[in-house]
Amino acid sequence: MRIAIFIFDGITALDAIGPYEILGRLPGAQVTFCALEAGVCRTDTGALGLVADKGIDDVEAADLLIIPGGPRAGGVASDPRLQAWVRRVHATTRWTCSVCTGALILAAAGLLDGQPATTHWYRFDALAALGAVPVRERVVVSGRIITAAGVSAGIDMALQLAAILGGEALAQALQLSIEYDPAPPFDAGSPDKAPPEILASVKAFYAERDKGRS
Amino acid sequence: MRIAIFIFDGITALDAIGPYEILGRLPGAQVTFCALEAGVCRTDTGALGLVADKGIDDVEAADLLIIPGGPRAGGVASDPRLQAWVRRVHATTRWTCSVCTGALILAAAGLLDGQPATTHWYRFDALAALGAVPVRERVVVSGRIITAAGVSAGIDMALQLAAILGGEALAQALQLSIEYDPAPPFDAGSPDKAPPEILASVKAFYAERDKGRS
Repeated sequence: MRIAIFIFDGITALDAIGPYEILGRLPGAQVTFCALEAGVCRTDTGALGLVADKGIDDVEAADLLIIPGGPRAGGVASDPRLQAWVRRVHATTRWTCSVCTGALILAAAGLLDGQPATTHWYRFDALAALGAVPVRERVVVSGRIITAAGVSAGIDMALQLAAILGGEALAQALQLSIEYDPAPPFDAGSPDKAPPEILASVKAFYAERDKGRS
Repeated sequence: MRIAIFIFDGITALDAIGPYEILGRLPGAQVTFCALEAGVCRTDTGALGLVADKGIDDVEAADLLIIPGGPRAGGVASDPRLQAWVRRVHATTRWTCSVCTGALILAAAGLLDGQPATTHWYRFDALAALGAVPVRERVVVSGRIITAAGVSAGIDMALQLAAILGGEALAQALQLSIEYDPAPPFDAGSPDKAPPEILASVKAFYAERDKGRS
């Protein structure tokens, strides 16, 4: 199974690594990390380089296409060349998936027009502006497109997809192999659960960050 | 805060990326990915290159030292040069941490002698053989050493550590920012919870893999 994972400068690493860690262990998986051009992409913090072994022009088809996000994914999504590639590869996939603001890239390519989808909780307006119908769920399946909520949601998405592709026993084996028995020390992982002052502080942080960018 | 994350050929990517995604967002965090030599390390599946910006000889001190694992971590751990570096940097840290079989690297360096620690559930015997006292918990704190269980446990460890370093409000804000509100589709993420036949199949897979390696 050919799995193409798109990466870019400014990517949030866990968006890509969560699904990779699970789907890359499916029997017969052939994972290709690709970017606009082959070479090193730096993550959103700048602290890590991820190697894209191929440029997108060298990836014409895939069984699974995984599009992660990052704080600047909305800008990345506006590239007509990327949009055309996403559409072209999507035409060949069994499943096309996004994590976090990777949904903005799918939406900008026209894949989510009128479709239910999710993204990072802070970017619902941006997703709606691109024609999708935001749904506040951790994983949204619509046709053969699967969108996951922010960052860590890609792990849950990948387990669901592993079960679809290889059966529940295989998905459970993969879950056990990465010892995914989550025990977060707090229950603050969604805007519905986080204390209001925490939610306000994160929103303020994002607003400041986005201001500095424009 | 200087955060050194050691990587190596054969690393399980999520072991490193989970903690990085959280701790790398602490205010003032300066993350350095380092390896035996600067350059690209391929992950355990071979499918991804991670860039080590520095060789370990260029990293003499750190506030946090993070040691991830991988299927071959036991072999990596036997390198006297790595052991000496781990001991040297540990002498400078506030916290020294491992994820998954990264604990074998700490143990081989002599940091876990007689200490409670955890690792991937499949490697408890190897951890005990190196002098540690394996404990079946997701995160184990002993002195200023924190060990996490397999792969995904590094996320929970990092949130605990973020709370220690920056307070619970900060840790919750980081949890919200990566939308860590886990919803695994199955409850099979630990050997105590997985169906017996799933546990047996994963053990058999590991045994076969290790046989092929020796």
